[in-house]
Amino acid sequence: METYFDDSIIKTSIMPCHNQQPNNVNQDHAVMKQVRFANNASISAVSNSGAEEVKEACGNEHVEEQVQLGPQLKLLPLNDQIRELQTIIRDIKTSRGDFVFCADRLIRLVVEQGLNQLPYSECTVITPTGHKYEGVKFEKGNCGVSIMRSGEAMEQGLRDCCRSIRIGKILIQSDEDTQKAKVYYAKFPPDIYRRKVLLMYPILSTGNTVIEAVRVLIEHGLLPKHIILLSLFSTPHGAKSIIQEFPDITILTTEVHPVAPTHFGQKYFGTD
Amino acid sequence: METYFDDSIIKTSIMPCHNQQPNNVNQDHAVMKQVRFANNASISAVSNSGAEEVKEACGNEHVEEQVQLGPQLKLLPLNDQIRELQTIIRDIKTSRGDFVFCADRLIRLVVEQGLNQLPYSECTVITPTGHKYEGVKFEKGNCGVSIMRSGEAMEQGLRDCCRSIRIGKILIQSDEDTQKAKVYYAKFPPDIYRRKVLLMYPILSTGNTVIEAVRVLIEHGLLPKHIILLSLFSTPHGAKSIIQEFPDITILTTEVHPVAPTHFGQKYFGTD
Amino acid sequence: METYFDDSIIKTSIMPCHNQQPNNVNQDHAVMKQVRFANNASISAVSNSGAEEVKEACGNEHVEEQVQLGPQLKLLPLNDQIRELQTIIRDIKTSRGDFVFCADRLIRLVVEQGLNQLPYSECTVITPTGHKYEGVKFEKGNCGVSIMRSGEAMEQGLRDCCRSIRIGKILIQSDEDTQKAKVYYAKFPPDIYRRKVLLMYPILSTGNTVIEAVRVLIEHGLLPKHIILLSLFSTPHGAKSIIQEFPDITILTTEVHPVAPTHFGQKYFGTD
Amino acid sequence: METYFDDSIIKTSIMPCHNQQPNNVNQDHAVMKQVRFANNASISAVSNSGAEEVKEACGNEHVEEQVQLGPQLKLLPLNDQIRELQTIIRDIKTSRGDFVFCADRLIRLVVEQGLNQLPYSECTVITPTGHKYEGVKFEKGNCGVSIMRSGEAMEQGLRDCCRSIRIGKILIQSDEDTQKAKVYYAKFPPDIYRRKVLLMYPILSTGNTVIEAVRVLIEHGLLPKHIILLSLFSTPHGAKSIIQEFPDITILTTEVHPVAPTHFGQKYFGTD
Repeated sequence: METYFDDSIIKTSIMPCHNQQPNNVNQDHAVMKQVRFANNASISAVSNSGAEEVKEACGNEHVEEQVQLGPQLKLLPLNDQIRELQTIIRDIKTSRGDFVFCADRLIRLVVEQGLNQLPYSECTVITPTGHKYEGVKFEKGNCGVSIMRSGEAMEQGLRDCCRSIRIGKILIQSDEDTQKAKVYYAKFPPDIYRRKVLLMYPILSTGNTVIEAVRVLIEHGLLPKHIILLSLFSTPHGAKSIIQEFPDITILTTEVHPVAPTHFGQKYFGTD
Repeated sequence: METYFDDSIIKTSIMPCHNQQPNNVNQDHAVMKQVRFANNASISAVSNSGAEEVKEACGNEHVEEQVQLGPQLKLLPLNDQIRELQTIIRDIKTSRGDFVFCADRLIRLVVEQGLNQLPYSECTVITPTGHKYEGVKFEKGNCGVSIMRSGEAMEQGLRDCCRSIRIGKILIQSDEDTQKAKVYYAKFPPDIYRRKVLLMYPILSTGNTVIEAVRVLIEHGLLPKHIILLSLFSTPHGAKSIIQEFPDITILTTEVHPVAPTHFGQKYFGTD
Repeated sequence: METYFDDSIIKTSIMPCHNQQPNNVNQDHAVMKQVRFANNASISAVSNSGAEEVKEACGNEHVEEQVQLGPQLKLLPLNDQIRELQTIIRDIKTSRGDFVFCADRLIRLVVEQGLNQLPYSECTVITPTGHKYEGVKFEKGNCGVSIMRSGEAMEQGLRDCCRSIRIGKILIQSDEDTQKAKVYYAKFPPDIYRRKVLLMYPILSTGNTVIEAVRVLIEHGLLPKHIILLSLFSTPHGAKSIIQEFPDITILTTEVHPVAPTHFGQKYFGTD
Repeated sequence: METYFDDSIIKTSIMPCHNQQPNNVNQDHAVMKQVRFANNASISAVSNSGAEEVKEACGNEHVEEQVQLGPQLKLLPLNDQIRELQTIIRDIKTSRGDFVFCADRLIRLVVEQGLNQLPYSECTVITPTGHKYEGVKFEKGNCGVSIMRSGEAMEQGLRDCCRSIRIGKILIQSDEDTQKAKVYYAKFPPDIYRRKVLLMYPILSTGNTVIEAVRVLIEHGLLPKHIILLSLFSTPHGAKSIIQEFPDITILTTEVHPVAPTHFGQKYFGTD
């Protein structure tokens, strides 16, 4: 169970200051979730300056914790469609068909933003009318790695955007005796240490599973700065744990909130 | 043919001021294309105030024309992946397989932003862990209408985001004798006048075809303010013509540039 | 309206002789629909010899009409999944979401069989373990042509099986004054006369629209023997009309029955 | 490595008698692969009577071993498109993009036939024109189970045909010390013992992994007769091992041949 306190209302609005706060909301965490920053690159780093803005705008002193997460944690620019997808995924009454359809849509949007973090170079192409067009070209040498089980739900979304990207996989489970996270299975492209890795895991709750997965990738020669973690939802605690352990990793998510929809994998695959 | 002048280099960079302008670029139009505005809602209206910002930042006097397009014209927040998709679509050397794959990706992104323009209401749902979650719910009563032939390429993308949305269709061609745009075929949901319409046409060149299509929709009782035009590329001229004719319509596109990739439909369907 | 008589029960069983015929069934047509032939190639030509078999097996004298359709009309080998898809498509209570999903599945199966009609050659490839493998390779030079509107529902299914096949389109409507079928729009690959054409139209009712479409293809230099008509349902009358007009065409369908689900296009696109 | 003898040519032709056998082919096994039976239900059980037919037709005495596999082993009705897909999957020169696309097509065809093995009942529906239509309706209560890693490649194909089917998963690996197959992970729908299971594993080589997976399913209360094993390719040895162990299971495959394309999983996921 992944709730960290008795917050009985989760708000998703993007403009915290313009919303009336219900009395029974824990202000600390409500703000945490609502803090979203936008910059030119249309993806937001949770930076100090951004936090200042929010503090100023909201008159809220509790942004400090968020601030400490630093620029590694990037939130998708929130919009109403994403809010609806988040709502449908969280709603207990959603049918499995709708759940999978909406999860797949949200996954594709996260994947698109994840691909944006990869290196590219300028290039010039010729159009059919003979014009030169100055565009960009992404570099080759990426791959995906899904963390079982729920991370596998993101494989098709990655394939929908990168037709023939290589996809590795890793299985981590708690040892029944020691309760320690243990790697049961790992299969990667052989030259993974030379690649940028899109690591896929939809729900960051404690962060322990991801931390273990990153350790395995490091053992295979990968630098943390070459890892982009694609997720849908994260707790503040989960994101913070991962960043404290690996300050060079990039985390992408659509919502940071203490209550994470931890039923995701079970509902997606129907093994509930 | 849809080129409006002899611009031999098309630049796509998002930060116009930091780029060296090649001498042979028509500054007017180069700027026009590059002007991209970002606001909180993560989608940009080309507004007066936004234009001021750009003028200030760039020291460029040629933004006036763009400004006149007003807040109806909305550009997708540019990012590097979108730039790559634009590049691949424009490149004469792209294979048909890659063209269709990349066009489909860009279409899905435009559709996602188009859906964002539709009305929604706040709602509260219960999560599997018994928490209340304040989310949003989009209203029913929308439909898609594709303008043949190239608009049909956007139907599957719409379906990928809205599983069972109704999709009407309209065929407009120039009369061989009079050269006037003429409606040859139109099939809509019977209650279209009560719906919001996502009108699909990927390349806005002169704007004439879209203008004729909007006229037909108005004849069916639709208000222009209920029309959201989804496109991939637009010329300044095309967008301006449509807006002058229908000041209440919303236009979504990913790039405004005098040279439009008018080979889109032929290449997508392979009828070149 | 496309019913040809007051048949109030449509039976789909594959073993006509083992089924009790309800009294109110018009035996002629019930048999017609049920006649399904299987041969080694796993696709059935409605041949004279096959008809003999059926007559013998069923003791039914009314197969003559069917027989006259000849080997051009090929039925998909019936199985229970196809029967379920047919049932869901015919059922008035089916939701639009389910209708589209099931139609897409049936379309893909018809497309797979349609591709089977195309020419191929033997080839030998080397496997990763160094073995020679004698396989086959289909020839290039095919294309799809959809007849508007309902034929367009089959385009994505064709693309799901042939990633970058070229797809032409044709619009035929009745002239309001003369009631004659008239071509309003036609767009083909320029070298269509050299290609094999998969002509797509899901419901063959009178056959008139298809006949007009084939005429247009012939005007573009195509031989009827190079046309494979992909359909889901056909009336005996529709199939017969087409074959009488063009004895060299190949027709593929999943069910021949006097009552055709003529609501297909409206329900698929939601324009009812 | 999964070759069982030095067969340097693999033949896939469906008419074994009309092909000249190269001298260096082991006749036994070549014939084994080519034996394909067709019956009315358009799916073939490898039955005694069928084998007799083949023996008669071919004058070949070596069908005995095949015969012993019995009616549990069902081959998809072979056609030229399936042969092409088999060829592309086996060819070492196939690109990963083409490999995945063709594998997905072949998987969908196997899934469609797998669904056909499930129980259904007759039903009568009403059409939009008010006719009664006697169709069929498949029973609920099925699920998929993929055997990692390669079985996961079949999950999307299953989803393409059954929108919201539940999908369990099982990971079996050889213990490094004992070399015995060992279950590392298993996650099923909780009521799996009441369901029919579509067990997914594309390449049956020794059969050991599948045998271990079936044991786990039996431990969860499932009867072997409720298991339908979906595969793409099988060796005679693999199919025989599974059937000897579980005479009530149903196996579906597209080709039985001593040389199995054991590179499937690596190539599909790009972890070679």
